[in-house]
Amino acid sequence: VTTLVKTSPPPPLVALLTDFGTRDWYVACLKGVILRICPRAHLLDITHDVPPYDIVGGAFTLAAAAPWLPLGTVCVCVVDPGVGTARRILAAHADGRTFIGPDNGLLSLVLARATQRRIVHVTNRAYWLPQVSRTFHGRDIMGPVAAHVARGVPLSRLGPTISRYTALPLPPLKRTSTTVTASVGYIDRFGNLITTLPAEQLVPGARVTYKGRRCRVVSAYGAGKAGELIAVAGSTGYIEVAVRNGSAATRCRARVGDRLVMA
Amino acid sequence: VTTLVKTSPPPPLVALLTDFGTRDWYVACLKGVILRICPRAHLLDITHDVPPYDIVGGAFTLAAAAPWLPLGTVCVCVVDPGVGTARRILAAHADGRTFIGPDNGLLSLVLARATQRRIVHVTNRAYWLPQVSRTFHGRDIMGPVAAHVARGVPLSRLGPTISRYTALPLPPLKRTSTTVTASVGYIDRFGNLITTLPAEQLVPGARVTYKGRRCRVVSAYGAGKAGELIAVAGSTGYIEVAVRNGSAATRCRARVGDRLVMA
Amino acid sequence: VTTLVKTSPPPPLVALLTDFGTRDWYVACLKGVILRICPRAHLLDITHDVPPYDIVGGAFTLAAAAPWLPLGTVCVCVVDPGVGTARRILAAHADGRTFIGPDNGLLSLVLARATQRRIVHVTNRAYWLPQVSRTFHGRDIMGPVAAHVARGVPLSRLGPTISRYTALPLPPLKRTSTTVTASVGYIDRFGNLITTLPAEQLVPGARVTYKGRRCRVVSAYGAGKAGELIAVAGSTGYIEVAVRNGSAATRCRARVGDRLVMA
Repeated sequence: VTTLVKTSPPPPLVALLTDFGTRDWYVACLKGVILRICPRAHLLDITHDVPPYDIVGGAFTLAAAAPWLPLGTVCVCVVDPGVGTARRILAAHADGRTFIGPDNGLLSLVLARATQRRIVHVTNRAYWLPQVSRTFHGRDIMGPVAAHVARGVPLSRLGPTISRYTALPLPPLKRTSTTVTASVGYIDRFGNLITTLPAEQLVPGARVTYKGRRCRVVSAYGAGKAGELIAVAGSTGYIEVAVRNGSAATRCRARVGDRLVMA
Repeated sequence: VTTLVKTSPPPPLVALLTDFGTRDWYVACLKGVILRICPRAHLLDITHDVPPYDIVGGAFTLAAAAPWLPLGTVCVCVVDPGVGTARRILAAHADGRTFIGPDNGLLSLVLARATQRRIVHVTNRAYWLPQVSRTFHGRDIMGPVAAHVARGVPLSRLGPTISRYTALPLPPLKRTSTTVTASVGYIDRFGNLITTLPAEQLVPGARVTYKGRRCRVVSAYGAGKAGELIAVAGSTGYIEVAVRNGSAATRCRARVGDRLVMA
Repeated sequence: VTTLVKTSPPPPLVALLTDFGTRDWYVACLKGVILRICPRAHLLDITHDVPPYDIVGGAFTLAAAAPWLPLGTVCVCVVDPGVGTARRILAAHADGRTFIGPDNGLLSLVLARATQRRIVHVTNRAYWLPQVSRTFHGRDIMGPVAAHVARGVPLSRLGPTISRYTALPLPPLKRTSTTVTASVGYIDRFGNLITTLPAEQLVPGARVTYKGRRCRVVSAYGAGKAGELIAVAGSTGYIEVAVRNGSAATRCRARVGDRLVMA
C-alpha cells in the first residue's frame, strides 16, 4: 500500500516573483486564486520585494533564481506597471520551466539565456477569471493561467506562438585590447555589487577597479581583510565587489549602472 | 492506482495574518504548533507585516484577502494587544471560510460583509495547548484551535455560539444631494490610497477631489500621465487615488482618514 | 481507499533560518535545490531576516523557535560570514530535530540546551552538489545535505562524529546574595527587550531595574498602564521589559547587552 501511495507524482510547483511587497493582501489574492484552481500546488516565493515597478531588478532576480528551480516549475512573474494598457501577457517554456508574465522585459533575461524556448501570447480567456479588472492582472489572468498550466494545460491552448518579445536596454560589456568595462547590474541585501562581468572571465592576475578604487581579487568573502574592497567570483556567475562582513554598497555609495574595469 | 491516489482530498489550507513581523521566531512557533497538530496542513501567509497593534489595518487587509481564499480555508488572525486580558477569542464561519482571532475588531469587517455567518466564543480548553502563557495566545490557543478545525473539529465543540462581537469605529460615507464624502481606509506599498468609496459608485462624469486636488478619473494606472493624480476603480472594490509609476501617498503626504469628495 | 491514502506519512518538514533577506534570489536558490532533491518536502521559513552576519541574533532566534517545531523537522541554518574559509559545517540531532549549519556558534544555543544530541562534521561530498562554489555553501552544501536527511539519509553517512563545537561568548548571569544581574539578549519587532533571565526566576515581590528605571512586574502586556515600563514573564521563557502597545526599545534606546537587575 505504501508503495502505491509513493508512486503518486510530487505536487506541481508554482513559484512567484512580484513587486507586491508582503504587507498588503495582493500576494494572498494571487495565491488564493492559484489554489482555487490547483489545490495541490506547492507555492514557492522567489520574492515579493522587487522594488515597485523595477522591471530590470525583477528580470535580474528571476534570471538568477531560475536555473536552480526544479524542472517543471511554473513561475508567475508580476512587475507590471502597464497593467490594463495594451502590453501583452506572455507564457513561455524556457529550459524546462514555464514563465508567465507581462511583455515588458521582465522575462527577457531568462528567455535570452535559454537554449530551448517557446513563447505564446496569452489570449485565450477560457483560462482567465471570468471577471477581469484593469488593475490586477496578476490575480485575474496570470495567476489563473499559471494554475491551469500547473494542472497540465499545454501552452498551445493559451494563445498563438510568437517569436518577438520586449527586451531590456542593458549596457553591453565594452572591450579594448587591454581592458573590459562592465557595470553593476544589481546590489544585494549584503551590499555586494553584482556586476555584469561573467565570473569565468576573471583571470588570476587581473587588476579590477571600481570607481577608481582597486579591488583585490580573492576567492571567498572571508578572505578579505577588515574594510578591504574585494572582487570575487560570485555564486550567481558574475564578478562581485564586496567587503568582508560589511557592505560595499554603503562604503562606496554604489548604484546600479556604476562602471567596473578589469585590466 | 493513480486514480485512487488522486481521489484523496487536497491538504487543508490554513492562512495566517499577524503583526508578528518576519524577523523573530513568533511565526515559526505558530506554524510549528499548527503542523504538530495537523501535519498535512498547507500554510499560506496572508501577511505578518500588519504594523504592530494596528487592528484597523489588519481588519482591512483580512477583509480584502478573504474573498479570494479557497472555500474551506481556516484563517488564524493575530493582532492582539490585549493578549492575557479579558478580551474573548472568537471562531467564526463566514461565507465558507473559518476565522479565528481575538474579539477586538480584527474579524469585524469580514463578519460584517458575510451573508452567512456563525460565531462561537472559544472556551473549550481541550483544543488549546496544555500550558497557556499570558503573552502569546496565537501560539497557545488560536493556532492550536485552527489546526484542530483544519482536521475537522466542528465549531460547536469550541465553545458557545454568540451573536455580538466588537466592531471597529470606522467613519461612514457622508452624502448630500450633490456629493459623497469618503475617506482613505488604507495605503498600500505602492502608495495607492484605497478609499472607502465602493468602486461601483464611481460615475463616469464624476469630479473626484482629494485634499483639494482634482483627480482625473481613468480606468487603469497606466492611463495616468507622468506625475498626475488619478482616481481608478481598484481591484479591491474601492476607488483608489494613485500616481502612475509613482506614489500618491508620498506625493500628497497621505494618511489614513484623509477625506475624498466625489461630486 | 481513503484509509490507504491517509496512512501515507506526512511530508518531511524542512525549516530554514538565514540572513539572506527576502529581496534577492538566495532563498529561492536554496529552496529550489532542496526541492530538486526532495520534491515532497514542506518548507517552513523560520526567518530570513537575521541581520547580515549576526550569528548571535540567529542563534537566539533558532533556539527560541526550535522547541515548537514538529519532531523530525530538519533545519537548515545559514548565517555564514566565513563561507569558503576553513570553518566546518555541522549536522546535529538535538532533542528529536536535525540542524545543519556552519560551526560558528549559530547552532550552539540549541545544542547547549539539548538533553540528547549527536553531532557530525559534514565531509562526505556525495550529498553535496557536484560543483561547490566558495561563496554560497547554503545552496551548494547545507541545502542539499538537509534535503538528503529529509529523504532519510542517516547522520552517520554525512561524516565523522565530533564532540566539540564553537560556542558563543554570551555573558552569564551574575548573582550576589541579594541581586541577579542579567542582560538584554534580543530585541524583538515589538520593541520588547528579551533578557537572559529565565522567567521562572521572577519572584512575585521582585524589584526589577533596567538602566536605572524601575519596571513594574505584571503578568500580561495589557496589564501595563500607558507608557509604563513593565517586566513580564515572556512566551520565550525569559523575563521581558515591555511597554503596553508601545516599544520599550524606542523608549529606552535599548541595545543588546544592556543590563537588567533583579533585587
